[in-house]
Amino acid sequence: MSALKNRRIVLASRPEGRPTRENLRVEEADVPEPGEGQVLLRVQYLSLDPYMRGRMSAARSYAPPVELGAVMVGGTVAQVIRSRHPDYKEGDVVLSYSGWQTHAVAKGDGLRKLDPSAAPVSTALGVLGMPGFTAYSGLFTIGRPQPGETVVVAAASGPVGATVGQLARLKGARAVGIAGGPDKCAYVRDELGFDAVVDHRAPDFAARLKEACPKGVDVYFENVGGAVWDAVFPRLNPFARVPVCGLIAQYNATGPFEGPDRLPIVMRDVLSKSLTLRGFIQTEFHSQLPDFYREMGAWIREGRVRYREDIVNGLDNAPEAFIGLLEGRNFGKLVVRVDEAA
Amino acid sequence: MSALKNRRIVLASRPEGRPTRENLRVEEADVPEPGEGQVLLRVQYLSLDPYMRGRMSAARSYAPPVELGAVMVGGTVAQVIRSRHPDYKEGDVVLSYSGWQTHAVAKGDGLRKLDPSAAPVSTALGVLGMPGFTAYSGLFTIGRPQPGETVVVAAASGPVGATVGQLARLKGARAVGIAGGPDKCAYVRDELGFDAVVDHRAPDFAARLKEACPKGVDVYFENVGGAVWDAVFPRLNPFARVPVCGLIAQYNATGPFEGPDRLPIVMRDVLSKSLTLRGFIQTEFHSQLPDFYREMGAWIREGRVRYREDIVNGLDNAPEAFIGLLEGRNFGKLVVRVDEAA
Repeated sequence: MSALKNRRIVLASRPEGRPTRENLRVEEADVPEPGEGQVLLRVQYLSLDPYMRGRMSAARSYAPPVELGAVMVGGTVAQVIRSRHPDYKEGDVVLSYSGWQTHAVAKGDGLRKLDPSAAPVSTALGVLGMPGFTAYSGLFTIGRPQPGETVVVAAASGPVGATVGQLARLKGARAVGIAGGPDKCAYVRDELGFDAVVDHRAPDFAARLKEACPKGVDVYFENVGGAVWDAVFPRLNPFARVPVCGLIAQYNATGPFEGPDRLPIVMRDVLSKSLTLRGFIQTEFHSQLPDFYREMGAWIREGRVRYREDIVNGLDNAPEAFIGLLEGRNFGKLVVRVDEAA
Repeated sequence: MSALKNRRIVLASRPEGRPTRENLRVEEADVPEPGEGQVLLRVQYLSLDPYMRGRMSAARSYAPPVELGAVMVGGTVAQVIRSRHPDYKEGDVVLSYSGWQTHAVAKGDGLRKLDPSAAPVSTALGVLGMPGFTAYSGLFTIGRPQPGETVVVAAASGPVGATVGQLARLKGARAVGIAGGPDKCAYVRDELGFDAVVDHRAPDFAARLKEACPKGVDVYFENVGGAVWDAVFPRLNPFARVPVCGLIAQYNATGPFEGPDRLPIVMRDVLSKSLTLRGFIQTEFHSQLPDFYREMGAWIREGRVRYREDIVNGLDNAPEAFIGLLEGRNFGKLVVRVDEAA
C-alpha cells in the first residue's frame, strides 16, 4: 500500500479576477494509511462547481477559504480500497468530500454509500447530489411555484438550472430557460422540455426575454447575476420570489463596481412589488434530503427529470475544465473522471 | 346641508424631487349629498404618512398615483353627519380613507366603526392603525425575532419604528433604534425602553451602530434606506431577515444614481449570508387584523406598548407638515386635526 502515490491539485496562489492555470499546482505525495474508524478511498469522479471559485479567495464567505498549499475542496465519488470502519468494506462506492486528488483517507461517518445499480454513481455529484438538491430545496422552499406561474432560470443546461426548470414544470408552472448558444438552447427546449428558452448571447436578449415571459416572472431562480439579472429584474411580478444560490457572473469581479448605482432601483421594486430575495446554501435544508432522494430518484427513473453530464478525463485536466466552467464552456454537469477504470 | 362647504387639498403638480408647497392647492367645493347606502362624513383627523410621496409621482407603484387635480389620498378618522346606510347613524366615529379634505361621502362597507371609549380615536391612524399594523405584520411575519436576537429599526420615534422596537422586546429580542437628534434618542431609550439608540446625525454613526450591536443584526426592519442601510447592511448576521416597508431617504431622489454600484456587494452578501430581503405592504396581511386589534389593544391598555402623536391643527397646515415629515421634522405619529371641535 505504501507504494501507492496520491496525485493532488493544491491552491498555489489566490486568483485576482479570473483564475489561471498558475493558481493551481499538481503534486504527488505518499498515500496515507487509514487509522481506526477510517477508510482509504480511491477517487472515481470529482465534481467541479462554480462555488469553488469562492473558496479560492481569502474573503469571508459561508465557508472558510482553501488555505494556500492545501488540496482544492470538492465533492467526489470514490471506492473504498481499505477499510478500518465496520460499516464499509473494500469495493464499496461512496459519496465523499475528498477534493481534487486521486486518493484520500476519510472518516466513515462523513460518507454516504451509493448503490451503483440504482443510478450511475456520478449522478451523486449532479442531479442526485448537491446541484440537484440546490434546485429542489431552493425552488420548492423559497420559490414555491404555483400552477400557471412563470419560472425563469439561467444556466438552464447546467445541473441546477436544468433541474429547476423541469421541477417547475412538474408543479404546473411555465419554465423559461436562459442558456448560451444554439446547442444549449436547443437542448433546453427540445430535450428538457422547457416552455421557452432565450439565448443570453443574442444582441436583443432583454427584448426576447420579455417576449418569452408575456405574463411576467413569478420566480427567478438566481444563479448567475450580471446581465441576466438586469434583464429579468424589471419583469418580476408583484410577490415574485428570487431564490439566490449563485452569482457566477460576478465571482471573478474585483470591486469597487462602476456606477450607476443599481441598488436604489432594486430596493424600490422590492418595496413596490413586495418582492422576496433570499440567498441560500442547500445545506440549510438538509432535513429535506430523504424526501429529495426518494422523489428525485423516482422522477429520474420515470424519465420525468432528465440530466446531462460533461465528463472530462483525468485529474490533470481539472484546472482547465474549471476555468472553462466559469466561462460557460461546459455543457451539462461538469465531472472529472479521476480513475480511468471507473 | 347644501350650505356646507368642503375644503380640500388637491395635487396641483407632480414634484421633481422634494415636494414643495406649490405641488398642492387648497380648494373649496360644495359638499355632496350621500346616495343610498352612503354616509356623509366630517373628517376629524387626517393621517400624514411617508407613502403619500409615492402617490404624488406618476411612476407605477403598488397603488395608482393620485391624478392631477384630485384630492390627496389619506387615512382619516371622521364623524358620520348624515347616514343613508343601515349600519351607521349620525355621530358614529369611523375610520375611513377620505383624504385631505374636511368632508367626504363614503360607502358604508369601506368603513370601520371606532369605539371612542376604548382608545383615543386618533390612534386608529397610528399605533392601532396602518403604521402599527405595518410594524406588527412585518416584524412578526417576515422578521420573526427570536429571544436574544438583535432587531434594528430606524425612524425609531415614529409610529412604525417605535412599535417595531417595543414588539421586538415583547418577544425577548434586543431592540436597537436609530433616530435623529438628542430629543428623539432620549425618548426612544427612556420612554420606549429600547436597549440602545444611535443618532444617525452623529459623524461616527456607523461606528456607533456597530458598538450598539455587538452580536450583529438579526432583523433589520427597513423603513428609511440611504445612509442607514449602508451602516446596517454590513452588520447583518447569517440568516438575517430584512422586512422592507419604506425607503423614505430615497423617495425624493431622481435617478439615475451615482456610482459606485452597490448592488453586487449586496447580492454577494445575500448569497454568502443567506439573507432574506422582503418588501411588503401591510394590506397583504389583512387576515391578521383581528389578532392585531386584540393583541395591540391589550398591550396598549397594559402600558406595554407606548406611542406618541404629533398633532398639527388645521387642514391648511397639512402640506407644510407633510414636507416636514419627509425631512424627519415630526416627532411621533403625524396627524392633522382637521375638525377643531374634535
